Amino acid sequence: MDDTRISLAHGNGGRFMRELIEQIFAKNFGSSELNVEADAVPIALGEGEVLMTTDGFTVQPLEFPGGDIGSLSVHGTTNDLAVAGARPMFLTLNAFIEEGFEIERLDRIVASLAKAAKESGVKVCAGDTKVVRRGEGGGLYLATTGVGVRLPGVVPAMNKIRNGDAVIVSGTVGDHGTAVMLAREEFGLRGELISDAGPVMALTESLLSLDGLRFMRDPTRGGIASIAHEINRATGFGVRFTADIPVKEQVQSVCDMLGYDPYYLACEGRVVAVIAEEQAEHALQLWRLLPEGAAAARIGRITGTGDRVILETALGGERFLEELEDDPLPRIC
Amino acid sequence: MDDTRISLAHGNGGRFMRELIEQIFAKNFGSSELNVEADAVPIALGEGEVLMTTDGFTVQPLEFPGGDIGSLSVHGTTNDLAVAGARPMFLTLNAFIEEGFEIERLDRIVASLAKAAKESGVKVCAGDTKVVRRGEGGGLYLATTGVGVRLPGVVPAMNKIRNGDAVIVSGTVGDHGTAVMLAREEFGLRGELISDAGPVMALTESLLSLDGLRFMRDPTRGGIASIAHEINRATGFGVRFTADIPVKEQVQSVCDMLGYDPYYLACEGRVVAVIAEEQAEHALQLWRLLPEGAAAARIGRITGTGDRVILETALGGERFLEELEDDPLPRIC
Repeated sequence: MDDTRISLAHGNGGRFMRELIEQIFAKNFGSSELNVEADAVPIALGEGEVLMTTDGFTVQPLEFPGGDIGSLSVHGTTNDLAVAGARPMFLTLNAFIEEGFEIERLDRIVASLAKAAKESGVKVCAGDTKVVRRGEGGGLYLATTGVGVRLPGVVPAMNKIRNGDAVIVSGTVGDHGTAVMLAREEFGLRGELISDAGPVMALTESLLSLDGLRFMRDPTRGGIASIAHEINRATGFGVRFTADIPVKEQVQSVCDMLGYDPYYLACEGRVVAVIAEEQAEHALQLWRLLPEGAAAARIGRITGTGDRVILETALGGERFLEELEDDPLPRIC
Repeated sequence: MDDTRISLAHGNGGRFMRELIEQIFAKNFGSSELNVEADAVPIALGEGEVLMTTDGFTVQPLEFPGGDIGSLSVHGTTNDLAVAGARPMFLTLNAFIEEGFEIERLDRIVASLAKAAKESGVKVCAGDTKVVRRGEGGGLYLATTGVGVRLPGVVPAMNKIRNGDAVIVSGTVGDHGTAVMLAREEFGLRGELISDAGPVMALTESLLSLDGLRFMRDPTRGGIASIAHEINRATGFGVRFTADIPVKEQVQSVCDMLGYDPYYLACEGRVVAVIAEEQAEHALQLWRLLPEGAAAARIGRITGTGDRVILETALGGERFLEELEDDPLPRIC
């Protein structure tokens, strides 16, 4: 048996599984945090409404500039709590590991996950590992579930959106999707672009005291265009994007070459907010005080019932942004 | 595009994914339960200590006599909360679906999951789906995370176990592992054996008022022998199993043919409890009042520090039950 790689016996509930959990997971998370012997663990949540969310992760490649599947599995789930107005507190982790996976690589990814959890202020309180047969499993899939408590201030909700509200974004769009695609090298392209994957808690918390805040979401799969379609479907209002959406030059040129539209590409560390027009500039000022909000920009507005999702072009024209159908970039999260 | 099967576009955040979630997941769970548009959902937990647990599921075949990966993903996680002394309340669900998977089969499995959740009194409050490439996902993997609230009564914990305590089990052991193995037909064996997979909440709640209750666990991967090893490792005490462990005739004959030991095979609807000797008979009486506890039996006792895990044989001899190393039955949960 090759002891540098995962075997099926690492998933059977016996000694190898116990040692793997102790040596990789418990080691990286710290024994005070992860009780590897309990069936279920108590979580101390304190006062306030409890929120819960979950996400699965199948990104390929598993490691990319600016992150890996481990850190992504923390940011993806904690950011969903953050945009709902909660402070993330606890995470559970499921790992589906392919037989033959390098244990050293698993250790590196779990260490990155633990670091991201620490930076995000969440504890990984419970976990489970399953080993799947060689050839099944794409190396490693992760699933995380997060629990948090609602913060004081506005309760962001889609049904608060009104005609005339401003739409703002905390930074450039499409960085994550493009960085992951370049890391695959499948189009013969390479680049130094770094994923935007990271925590958004400072961004979301800074807006909760603004009573004009309506709604926040992190533009992951499907990008900012898909958020606009969700708003359109849920509220009936249109969304009109202006030509000022911040896109990095390298992202734009990759999109131009491949015929992609950056507005459909995933971010993993950005926030889109809908906010009353009169408070939009204040919100942007608050965001720009933060390093992760330096490139924050107003990108559009909510328009009347029956309108669709429209992009104004730099030349003064406009085009419909249709709902995403074909997948431009599978497996980016 | 074959619209009877899952495609990569079902995982991209666009229209196909939305329709899949609406038509399979939201339909089966009921729209009042699963808010498919929220990033994170509020969960109303009421008073009491909150407990959390998580589990991944990769069982093969996905459907077997007495259950399927959907119902198993409910029972596995809710039972972990139950044996910790909690009432399960909310579940999140992650589905990793392989490209090409039959949508009708997915619907059947999700319907079974929803039925099991309803029977177990839990709400599926949040979910996520990912689609992985053909050949990479074994059809379907699931991960569930459960949250519950501690019930009044004893707080079961391994460190409460004392020398001389009785060990009891709520029913026959090894049914689930054997039923799944027979469903694979890989050994040329077939049978009508039904998995024991099911909720254990009635069993666990019935013991919480007994002040002599020390500890409970559901013997899944690694079976009752692995629970004994966990007790041995955590407390230093030995566990001495008697020859009275209930094993169905069909389970025993499959084990005899294949050289397996039923004490290492998984159950998915049984409880092992450690309880003060003087309350063991009372606990067994309480269990036997329940249909799922009809075959409950005393199966051993806790012995002194430094002892190991021992099985007394019917002929008056004894043998060590070693910690599980090689996997007798991979992918049984």
